[in-house]
Amino acid sequence: MQKSNNRLTELLNIHHPIVSAPMALAAGGALAGAVSRAGGFGLIGGGYGDPAWLEEQFITAQGERIGVGFITWALKKSPSLLTDVLKHKPAAVMLSFGDPRPFVDEIRDAGALLICQCQNTDHVWDAIDVGADIIIAQGSEAGGHGAARGTMSFVPEAADLLAEHAPQSVLLAAGGIADGRGLAAARMLGADGVLMGTRFWASREALVHENHHLAIIEANGDETIRTTIPDIARQLDWPRGLTARVRHNTFVRRWQGREKELKQNLSEEVIKYAKAFAAGDIENTGVWFGEAAGLIEDIESAGDIVMKIATEAEKVMR
Amino acid sequence: MQKSNNRLTELLNIHHPIVSAPMALAAGGALAGAVSRAGGFGLIGGGYGDPAWLEEQFITAQGERIGVGFITWALKKSPSLLTDVLKHKPAAVMLSFGDPRPFVDEIRDAGALLICQCQNTDHVWDAIDVGADIIIAQGSEAGGHGAARGTMSFVPEAADLLAEHAPQSVLLAAGGIADGRGLAAARMLGADGVLMGTRFWASREALVHENHHLAIIEANGDETIRTTIPDIARQLDWPRGLTARVRHNTFVRRWQGREKELKQNLSEEVIKYAKAFAAGDIENTGVWFGEAAGLIEDIESAGDIVMKIATEAEKVMR
Ligand SMILES: Cc1cc2nc3c(=O)[nH]c(=O)nc-3n(C[C@H](O)[C@H](O)[C@H](O)COP(=O)(O)O)c2cc1C
Ligand SMILES: Cc1cc2nc3c(=O)[nH]c(=O)nc-3n(C[C@H](O)[C@H](O)[C@H](O)COP(=O)(O)O)c2cc1C
Repeated sequence: MQKSNNRLTELLNIHHPIVSAPMALAAGGALAGAVSRAGGFGLIGGGYGDPAWLEEQFITAQGERIGVGFITWALKKSPSLLTDVLKHKPAAVMLSFGDPRPFVDEIRDAGALLICQCQNTDHVWDAIDVGADIIIAQGSEAGGHGAARGTMSFVPEAADLLAEHAPQSVLLAAGGIADGRGLAAARMLGADGVLMGTRFWASREALVHENHHLAIIEANGDETIRTTIPDIARQLDWPRGLTARVRHNTFVRRWQGREKELKQNLSEEVIKYAKAFAAGDIENTGVWFGEAAGLIEDIESAGDIVMKIATEAEKVMR
Repeated sequence: MQKSNNRLTELLNIHHPIVSAPMALAAGGALAGAVSRAGGFGLIGGGYGDPAWLEEQFITAQGERIGVGFITWALKKSPSLLTDVLKHKPAAVMLSFGDPRPFVDEIRDAGALLICQCQNTDHVWDAIDVGADIIIAQGSEAGGHGAARGTMSFVPEAADLLAEHAPQSVLLAAGGIADGRGLAAARMLGADGVLMGTRFWASREALVHENHHLAIIEANGDETIRTTIPDIARQLDWPRGLTARVRHNTFVRRWQGREKELKQNLSEEVIKYAKAFAAGDIENTGVWFGEAAGLIEDIESAGDIVMKIATEAEKVMR
């Protein structure tokens, strides 16, 4: 397998232009380490900020060259987490879902690259403004949190903005990409590589219940929805306009359009959600994957996923 | 400019794998004819069914080899329209937004190719079932009517379904594509070509008010929304789940979330909408374009658009 050189692989010093997303709860050190070991770049999911868990994940990554990603609005509530994490010398820190400005200097000073994930052109302007090394254009088909823009139109629009205003910044595409065709398409649209969540969620190293893994194998791409329901049930204060893409199941159907009622029943529902999640129930909790589910037929090791996608993309592009 | 041969260009006997969408009200014979003349394939928009207007558009197309597209649920209300149109010997008939079955035999018997536009995998199964010659996977970023799936994940998923169950059917990608990068990306995802609406809406030959054309030049891709508001104000009975992507303007902001109230004020609002539309008002009526708006910087002739995109795609793919 050849090294597929471009600006991204050079900047991150990796072999394949494939980055695994810092998925809250699902992307620990085992996943990030495996992706980096295979020649991609792995990110640990900083999530909602559990310092002990994060410490553990860096140990699990066994010294692989990895990064870490934060949910920016959550990090703002416990900024010391960034300070703690930077002691592990991550090669890059990714910020998504909030104003990156408060954290930029600390990340830079620690010698880490700055990655900003964007959901619309305003976010791209913010990322340009702080001089992000890597900018991710994330489309709505993405699993987990995101917004309204589709990957197909947002990536080339972001590429045009960078070409004119930040030619040194590297662009990644995210949202709905799970195979070599998607990576090849992203390259055509002007991205230097891809960030994938759903595909790596469906890997052996992801911290995901077996039943949830079976659910993604069964699902086609129509069976997800963008919704606020799981965040209400988890009492998480996500900013307006940022919704979660999850499997469209009994739990979502029950509450969609009845958000007020859910809020009135929170004390019960919070516990139900958490219990069902821990038990690997696939109907009564959030099952976190995106439209790319329709492209996924088995749970593989993250390293195999990196290699297969890199190989397929090269083949498709020839 | 070389002919870029593939299954689509051979099936339609055209030079470039570029089809212009049958946009209701905007895609007349001048646009369809110009696209076909330049080596693409043009479709007249059958829209909501005005026989006199359609007759006129076939004359305007001056005998170019073109096709015509219908909104399937609307055609069901006046099926004689299909019979009338087939007298003009269109090379292809496109059906979108409804069950194609009632019309398939008549289209076949007239010797026209059958094109089915799909918004989800159920629709793809329907199209396979009727043996459509061309199947379009339309993503949510599309201008005009559509549904929830994003182009980036839906196209490869549709390609997989066709590869297994209808290998003779040709696949087009639609939604958020407006330049050679998008065409190249569509090819990587497994499509044989593209259907573009918004890009051709922003052409000189489209039947679009000058002010609306100025609005798309100004807009970035974030400034559209999927909504039912324009259809309520036009008293059009669109099936659940199919929404319109339009510019996010004063009119949409006023009524979004207040659909019931709009329905109570219909007698007034219907007239206001129509008047503002005719006058080229860009704030108080539907302005019909998609997320690809962010990739469009001027109004060009449809023929130039075809040539430029074909050339750029070849360049990007090399
Ligand atoms: C299970 C899951 C959890 C996620 N959690 C986060 C997160 O904590 N922080 C973040 O920036 N993005 C998160 N994302 C979004 C990813 O960063 C990425 O944009 C997305 O996965 C890309 O789309 P894809 O899922 O189609 O590959 C998550 C995605 C998934 C699937
Ligand atoms: C102004 C406008 C009107 C449209 N009207 C129709 C229509 O009458 N019938 C139809 O099948 N599709 C219609 N569409 C959707 C197109 O067929 C196509 O799927 C879409 O334009 C592709 O996405 P794009 O706009 O990003 O190119 C329309 C699109 C636009 C922009």
